[in-house]
Amino acid sequence: MAMNAVVETRYLDLPKPLRLDCGRELASVRVAYETYGVLAPERDNVILVCHALSGDAHAAGLSKTPEESTRDGFAAEDRDGTAGKGLGWWDGMIGPGKAFDTDRYFVVSTNLLGGCRGTTGPSSVDPATGKPYGSDFPVITVADMVRTQRAFLDVLGIGRLAAVAGGSLGGMQALEWAILFPEQVDAVVAIASTHALHPQGLAWNAIARDAIMRDPAWQGGHYYGTGRTPDGGMGVGRMVGHVTYLSAPALDDKFGRRLQFADDIRYTITEPEFEVESYLRHQADSFVRRFDANTYLYLSRALTYFDLARQHGGGSLVRALDGVLARTLLIAFSSDWLYPPAASRQIEDALRALGKPVEYHEIEAPYGHDCFLLEEARQTPIVRRFLEMPS
Amino acid sequence: MAMNAVVETRYLDLPKPLRLDCGRELASVRVAYETYGVLAPERDNVILVCHALSGDAHAAGLSKTPEESTRDGFAAEDRDGTAGKGLGWWDGMIGPGKAFDTDRYFVVSTNLLGGCRGTTGPSSVDPATGKPYGSDFPVITVADMVRTQRAFLDVLGIGRLAAVAGGSLGGMQALEWAILFPEQVDAVVAIASTHALHPQGLAWNAIARDAIMRDPAWQGGHYYGTGRTPDGGMGVGRMVGHVTYLSAPALDDKFGRRLQFADDIRYTITEPEFEVESYLRHQADSFVRRFDANTYLYLSRALTYFDLARQHGGGSLVRALDGVLARTLLIAFSSDWLYPPAASRQIEDALRALGKPVEYHEIEAPYGHDCFLLEEARQTPIVRRFLEMPS
Repeated sequence: MAMNAVVETRYLDLPKPLRLDCGRELASVRVAYETYGVLAPERDNVILVCHALSGDAHAAGLSKTPEESTRDGFAAEDRDGTAGKGLGWWDGMIGPGKAFDTDRYFVVSTNLLGGCRGTTGPSSVDPATGKPYGSDFPVITVADMVRTQRAFLDVLGIGRLAAVAGGSLGGMQALEWAILFPEQVDAVVAIASTHALHPQGLAWNAIARDAIMRDPAWQGGHYYGTGRTPDGGMGVGRMVGHVTYLSAPALDDKFGRRLQFADDIRYTITEPEFEVESYLRHQADSFVRRFDANTYLYLSRALTYFDLARQHGGGSLVRALDGVLARTLLIAFSSDWLYPPAASRQIEDALRALGKPVEYHEIEAPYGHDCFLLEEARQTPIVRRFLEMPS
Repeated sequence: MAMNAVVETRYLDLPKPLRLDCGRELASVRVAYETYGVLAPERDNVILVCHALSGDAHAAGLSKTPEESTRDGFAAEDRDGTAGKGLGWWDGMIGPGKAFDTDRYFVVSTNLLGGCRGTTGPSSVDPATGKPYGSDFPVITVADMVRTQRAFLDVLGIGRLAAVAGGSLGGMQALEWAILFPEQVDAVVAIASTHALHPQGLAWNAIARDAIMRDPAWQGGHYYGTGRTPDGGMGVGRMVGHVTYLSAPALDDKFGRRLQFADDIRYTITEPEFEVESYLRHQADSFVRRFDANTYLYLSRALTYFDLARQHGGGSLVRALDGVLARTLLIAFSSDWLYPPAASRQIEDALRALGKPVEYHEIEAPYGHDCFLLEEARQTPIVRRFLEMPS
């Protein structure tokens, strides 16, 4: 892939219905995807990258529809004249010579099941009714997302993955892959992730979902076509998420208590006053323009349900990981309080207890959970060396 | 005061209009208050306790209207058969032999200016229009709250305070007292407080306020008498606040990832599933029944504006504190990430640099910011010894 090439998202319909954990079936599933690099004739150089809650298939390169880039927050800052040009969410990690080196690997990225960026989700039309699913969309799990990716790769004729990688919810998918399809995954790269979100993380997600569902414009989840969308609640939910993705010191460094518009306070309740207040409103406003509130609900629910020990180990993380055959790389960031290093260390300990190959790196970095989107330079040598190790 | 005596809130109208920092004037101000203990003939045994964002004048004893107690969260748990009986928010600290010993001191507690529990606030009737102020209520500051308390104490014939004490926003008032009325305060007790909230704290408060204002039922702040109140947004705001008042380990200890209703997940988006989710909804629902959303907006704005260095020191905390004559006791809690120990240490350092008498104690305790409402046993000996020291 040439530097900053324009990449177009493609779409593929799965040939068979998808059976879900909840017992329901999705008759028809479309998957939005992008690929970077060249598939080797032996088909043994495939890396699947999995996105987080607010990402999409556009992981690298420039988008044909730049205004819809999922880069936001600190990652939206101009780095090399690419701001506003639709750079993929992990462009810093995927490309020639980068962590996921497209000179060597064929990197595949899909929009998650339940998504709102091309893959079937709550805003898609239910073939049974001819109307968007809304809240009739089945409740999905991370395992359902992974089975969707498996079925999608089958269509592409890809059996094995040289690696599956992701940050946050993306890391959950990578770990789930290693458990559901142990024979088909050589290596797992789970960054800023966890085997089960801690209770405070459950709380933040519940608050964000409640903010959406308490917005009268949500209309029980059936707002499509009504001309009203729960932007107010979705905006509040996004602001909550955004603050949890950063660290308190990062907010302090970037904004301090600086006022936005004047030298002194203006005695206003309704208007933003501090820079950090303006920033959050801006993040909320731009997010609601590109993201579907129901998708937020479903993906948030999936990531809170995710619990490897409960799902696969009868309560034991060690038992859950017992069948893993892949080598595992775990990276966590010192300032990440949403997916803290302790969670990655628990995975490391469990794999080590089982005698499985695992590497854990804690990177000292200030930006909190968003580090996995921001600290490419620090992650790159770790990921490259790990991928180059003989299996 | 007898053990668990029933205390009645009283009301007093200030004799003169109140001039505010914003330049406006409140023609008529009523103050709700309670007192505990006996005023000495020399009137030299008065301690003013100041409440935090969601408190009220009912600081100690049992309330005549127990269903309206402001005790909630972990503090609502039954301790000695008093749950649900309307125990004051700082009952563990105020009473015979307690930290603020009513055998010796006359303790006064008022509902803050801007409040919704008897003191004039946005839900009060504007004498100019005969209708509730709503968002026409002037934007108030912590200094305005303190001037209201000063005017109120004048009516009671109380000039000097043996101490002024409070936690969180209450601690801000205590510090403001020492600066605005240095000759009239012998001692300051500021617990789990700060000289200026950090940017992440600004962010949480902005999100809570936005949740209220984005609720269509807020109606620009003029919802009184419409039959609709912004309960949805206020509930979300309260949930955000509640999580910031606790620590992640405290949520982990209390709830873990336990499911509320079943042995396994039920694949639901709308219903709470984890215990922590149910708990938060319960907190939200009970809070909106007792608290006015506009008061939340005004008090939240006041505590984000609070900034001693900006207000009184031209940007310097040392300069701001230069005129303080009171002895100062600062207490912070190790797990409090909203009003972290570092903020109290900055106040300590500034007072020490000025050669002023100051004591700082960091208490190792797990509950986060709410420790100031929960860790009475740990605070009591520190406060008692401090108050007994000769001035």
